Amino acid sequence: MTQRSPLAPASFPDLPAIDGVTLRTARAGYKAWTRCDLTYVELDAGTAVAGVTTQSKCPSPEVEWCRDAIPLGSARALVVNAGNANAFTGHRGRAAVEAIAAKVANHLGCLPSDIFVSSTGVIGVPLPIDKAEAGLEAAFTAAPCNWEEAATTIGTTDTFPKGAHVSVMIGDQRVELVGIIKGSGMIAPDMATMLGYIFTDAAIDPALLQQMLSAANRKSFSCITVDSDTSTSDTVLAFATGKAGHAPITSMDDAGADAFNAALHDLCRQLAHLVVRDGEGATKFIDIIVEGADSDASAHRIALSIANSPLVKTAIAGEDANWGRVVMAVGKAGEPADRDRLSIRFGATQVATGGLAVEGYDEAPVAAHLKGQDIQIGVDLGLGEGRAQVWTCDLTHGYISINADYRS
Amino acid sequence: MTQRSPLAPASFPDLPAIDGVTLRTARAGYKAWTRCDLTYVELDAGTAVAGVTTQSKCPSPEVEWCRDAIPLGSARALVVNAGNANAFTGHRGRAAVEAIAAKVANHLGCLPSDIFVSSTGVIGVPLPIDKAEAGLEAAFTAAPCNWEEAATTIGTTDTFPKGAHVSVMIGDQRVELVGIIKGSGMIAPDMATMLGYIFTDAAIDPALLQQMLSAANRKSFSCITVDSDTSTSDTVLAFATGKAGHAPITSMDDAGADAFNAALHDLCRQLAHLVVRDGEGATKFIDIIVEGADSDASAHRIALSIANSPLVKTAIAGEDANWGRVVMAVGKAGEPADRDRLSIRFGATQVATGGLAVEGYDEAPVAAHLKGQDIQIGVDLGLGEGRAQVWTCDLTHGYISINADYRS
Repeated sequence: MTQRSPLAPASFPDLPAIDGVTLRTARAGYKAWTRCDLTYVELDAGTAVAGVTTQSKCPSPEVEWCRDAIPLGSARALVVNAGNANAFTGHRGRAAVEAIAAKVANHLGCLPSDIFVSSTGVIGVPLPIDKAEAGLEAAFTAAPCNWEEAATTIGTTDTFPKGAHVSVMIGDQRVELVGIIKGSGMIAPDMATMLGYIFTDAAIDPALLQQMLSAANRKSFSCITVDSDTSTSDTVLAFATGKAGHAPITSMDDAGADAFNAALHDLCRQLAHLVVRDGEGATKFIDIIVEGADSDASAHRIALSIANSPLVKTAIAGEDANWGRVVMAVGKAGEPADRDRLSIRFGATQVATGGLAVEGYDEAPVAAHLKGQDIQIGVDLGLGEGRAQVWTCDLTHGYISINADYRS
Repeated sequence: MTQRSPLAPASFPDLPAIDGVTLRTARAGYKAWTRCDLTYVELDAGTAVAGVTTQSKCPSPEVEWCRDAIPLGSARALVVNAGNANAFTGHRGRAAVEAIAAKVANHLGCLPSDIFVSSTGVIGVPLPIDKAEAGLEAAFTAAPCNWEEAATTIGTTDTFPKGAHVSVMIGDQRVELVGIIKGSGMIAPDMATMLGYIFTDAAIDPALLQQMLSAANRKSFSCITVDSDTSTSDTVLAFATGKAGHAPITSMDDAGADAFNAALHDLCRQLAHLVVRDGEGATKFIDIIVEGADSDASAHRIALSIANSPLVKTAIAGEDANWGRVVMAVGKAGEPADRDRLSIRFGATQVATGGLAVEGYDEAPVAAHLKGQDIQIGVDLGLGEGRAQVWTCDLTHGYISINADYRS
């Protein structure tokens, strides 16, 4: 991995094992890397699955495979290939996914639809089936590894491995939720794919898990942006082995459902933040809160308009309290807004209110806030009760260097 | 002006005078510039006007003033202030616009609604009325100037003055159309405002001129993007003095209407291209053509998704034939697309077709094309007859330097 992002946590967290989950890695050799590039996760029989995938109209065959398999609700293994996204590869790409699923299903004695596959890396090059199969053979017999190794192996040009953890009590039983995620590193010529995997020993009905994951996704992975670009391969999967020993959760009325749901939301948000903290070239983590909008959906679109604005992102990179660019981003969102009711703050300091700059506001706390790594921009539209929160990073020379200063 | 854009034309074109249009400039002193910053254009009585303005929900008071005055159809003067956008300045900003219009109307003996006002520059600071009034006094008595001086004076951090010209025969009469435009330079802390002004001696009904300008705008100014950000002040106005001596054009069935319409479209496109050629940090002019879409509107949205993608723009900056990023941008547009029918070309070379890379395509002409300054990306969706063309520039370290490497 290249130089660690300045926004990275000090170290990989200490994550507990999840009963029913066995991690292994191997080297398929998709790229000229000396490190492992194939992650193989075995899941005990009875594991429930849920998932969310990219909104792209040009998804990879892996995404199409997962979309078909998720509604069936059960999983026995996950395979993640790093170094080749297998996207835009036509029937040859589809054949590679089918071959991987068939090989693992044969190994485990289960249905191919119980096998989940993701790939990330170079686009337009069919995943070589022979390398994938040899990699799987090696993985089947490899010694189990830890979370940090798996999180490192699913990465591409991520600058640090990303993992997070939440525990929750369901009745007397402690239940663990662990997640690993990769993004928004970049591998030529590819885009910043986000792949996230959540593992828990909770016993939960897959339809309910799907409902919770979809809701959590709307408040976490759907609320982050690095550069407004959307990968063809984005995937988040949640696997629940059911080994924790509590009474199964099958509806939101069941004991522990609310607690588990809250824990899942928390974990998704932690993982989403880690992706932003590895945004290409990022030097600032930006938290954007929009309130007083016509609706939550309107607030979300305005918040993303701010978060995706190159002018806002470069202003933050320059530690410049340029609230005019925030006004501009609100104005271009196409959502209900009244210039003369708009208020804007940086950190805790109101800089504009009621359609005017706050005359003589104290610039010292604003300057101090902008010199930090964690920036907050607050916007109040003064129209209604709509609220949203999104997270992004600044736009720097580092982004240009990563994405322009090489040749494929 | 700072270092001239590498995409700028060799010199300012030789533009003819327009009968009924008198250009003057003065120094109001909005900024600590030694150059003129106020442009005053006197228009003979009987001048028709049409205009298009920003879609921003947070427009400047100048934009609101012009929106109210345009439907009245007549103009006697244009005032452009450079160095202060007067946006987000509440009632004080509105008072400044009213004061300027009143002063010029009093000078010319016309209605305030015959006076058109634009401002560009710093945001959030009310335009100082005393400076504007003194500047106007100086302009009223200044010697008339030429197009290049006016085009320079409306500029802010534009790196070159921008003007263009088209002539058309209406009956036996030669009719001239001249335009000047500013953008996408940047002035702290402001956004890349585009202000464009078209002057013609044609005799044309203002409602018909509006119809033609709105249509031309959809194929020119609405088809360019530098960084996806939209100014609060964008304005294009067209003034027709009626001095050319041909029979007035009042409907599309009149002699010369088609020819004038075509000339206006041509001029708008020339002006729009000049703005892209001064895009912040631009080193490549990118022409994006999307064909085979479900509809023209769908093609336009897909073309803008490509044009606004930071990953596509950085790939072009890096002279990298990274068609995977084009697939990504098509996929994220949210418009109908079928991965397996998609074709992509750089210049004249097809690089992907039918959902697959073209195996063994000749990379030499692609590499040669990408080394040039004028890049063309063609996308065929293979779905229908929808077509669109948009223009943008690449995303470079220059953009970051201009927008992040200063402090306001």
